[in-house]
Amino acid sequence: MSLPQRVRLVEVGPRDGLQNEARPIDVADKIRLVDDLTHAGLGYIEVGSFVSPKWVPQMAGSAEVFAGIQRKKGVTYAALAPNLRGFEDALTAGVKEVAVFAAASESFSQRNINCSISESLDRFLPIMEAARLHGIQVRGYVSCVLGCPYEGAVSPKQVAAVANELFAMGCYEVSFGDTIGTGTPGATRELFNEVAGQIPRSKLAGHFHDTYGQALANIYAGLLEGIQVFDSSVAGLGGCPYAKGATGNVATEDVLYMLMGLGIDTGVDLDALVAAGQRISDVLGRANGSRVAKARLSG
Amino acid sequence: MSLPQRVRLVEVGPRDGLQNEARPIDVADKIRLVDDLTHAGLGYIEVGSFVSPKWVPQMAGSAEVFAGIQRKKGVTYAALAPNLRGFEDALTAGVKEVAVFAAASESFSQRNINCSISESLDRFLPIMEAARLHGIQVRGYVSCVLGCPYEGAVSPKQVAAVANELFAMGCYEVSFGDTIGTGTPGATRELFNEVAGQIPRSKLAGHFHDTYGQALANIYAGLLEGIQVFDSSVAGLGGCPYAKGATGNVATEDVLYMLMGLGIDTGVDLDALVAAGQRISDVLGRANGSRVAKARLSG
Repeated sequence: MSLPQRVRLVEVGPRDGLQNEARPIDVADKIRLVDDLTHAGLGYIEVGSFVSPKWVPQMAGSAEVFAGIQRKKGVTYAALAPNLRGFEDALTAGVKEVAVFAAASESFSQRNINCSISESLDRFLPIMEAARLHGIQVRGYVSCVLGCPYEGAVSPKQVAAVANELFAMGCYEVSFGDTIGTGTPGATRELFNEVAGQIPRSKLAGHFHDTYGQALANIYAGLLEGIQVFDSSVAGLGGCPYAKGATGNVATEDVLYMLMGLGIDTGVDLDALVAAGQRISDVLGRANGSRVAKARLSG
Repeated sequence: MSLPQRVRLVEVGPRDGLQNEARPIDVADKIRLVDDLTHAGLGYIEVGSFVSPKWVPQMAGSAEVFAGIQRKKGVTYAALAPNLRGFEDALTAGVKEVAVFAAASESFSQRNINCSISESLDRFLPIMEAARLHGIQVRGYVSCVLGCPYEGAVSPKQVAAVANELFAMGCYEVSFGDTIGTGTPGATRELFNEVAGQIPRSKLAGHFHDTYGQALANIYAGLLEGIQVFDSSVAGLGGCPYAKGATGNVATEDVLYMLMGLGIDTGVDLDALVAAGQRISDVLGRANGSRVAKARLSG
């Protein structure tokens, strides 16, 4: 199988990234980040999450962020909607695409969202119904696809089963998340191979964490399996892998650099992306988690 | 082509690594590092370099290091010998294997070792002759194989030509170094494909730097091309990619983690390796450059 000619990068920094940073930042800084990412050419930006600020203070003000950003034609600005209340808030804020998330591991589902996988999928049903009614696209996430912090190994068949349920409910795309970053390229290929036996590859996305440094090798493995959509986080927002307890989102800059080297088109400008990542790193007062950014900015 | 079942890791931390650290360390600490690496199961350790301590103070005492280490049967303890004088000193120190290095880029050769590629190869001739005479194996390095800081792109044909010269002189293996870390997996495969048209793959090694985060993806690409030997540096010694002006050697722990995930045997124990890397990082007073080590030690 030859590599895809074009890849869609799903920028999760403003949501998955900022949500996992210790310090909440101002709405104005979030708007600036999203606008910078739009300017850099990203075609898909996960802007925020409609959850209670009591539980996730980092995501407070998501409606204000949606109201403040400059939307560019053709760019998708998405939000996470963990329940119907969140979905309705997203709708009110003018969101046109939402994401829902399930786990591939029972223990992770129980400990992370306090319900079984099956119960979590049931909770999505009213969201899916409301989304259909309002013409909103829904993207699905499955976490722990290459390992669970409580159960260890997770079987590709189990992952495929959860993904199938999300598609059956109406998700147009499912993103497969290596939440703890323990996946390696062979397991990545095996997983996508298993899932692709049931769902077209064009509907599958990869979401890799760099906690163990494996993310780019796994993305390359995904490309070799015909995957054309990858999630990443500018400046590695959501946890520098050099910090304790970090989640280790792979940095968009590093993914883009590899794709550029492979001659794969993304429409994203590396210089503008590096500038956006350094700006938000400065706002957060953290080291830039992108190796490409570090190398270019120290040059 | 299927992946190799076994890979030989060439540990370059005590030489390429420490040589590029700002602070020289004591002979006793170097001996401890090499012994730790032996204990972890590495089969090949580049222990030191026989150069003038006036030029490379970090490599002072290499003879004392060789005298002090506990040699394990079957393990190769090698040294860099940049000239005949260095080779003779290595011989006196009881070294059984040496390495020589050339560049694939004229500009880099001129600026780095003050002579043309061809002149540098000529200088190796007396070393090769003396090595043959004393039954010493010689390993060759070619630097800048995927890019040069002065010339930019370097053609695979040019790299293959330099490698061919090293083999013709008597090197038993040549290691291809992405010195500035700008290589990506497609270019890596193209390079090995070109070289393998002229030299058996079993004689080729990959030496990748993680400056742009691409090293593991490139090593995976090398594995897919049938390469079975890779250089790496415990704890990423030789430059944390998060520090300014770093060279960015890929961390042995991170390479090993990927190989373990791929089911490829190396004979190296990850726990012992992580311990060795953390100990030397503490001696140097630097952050551990391995993501795997960080993840495991923070868990």
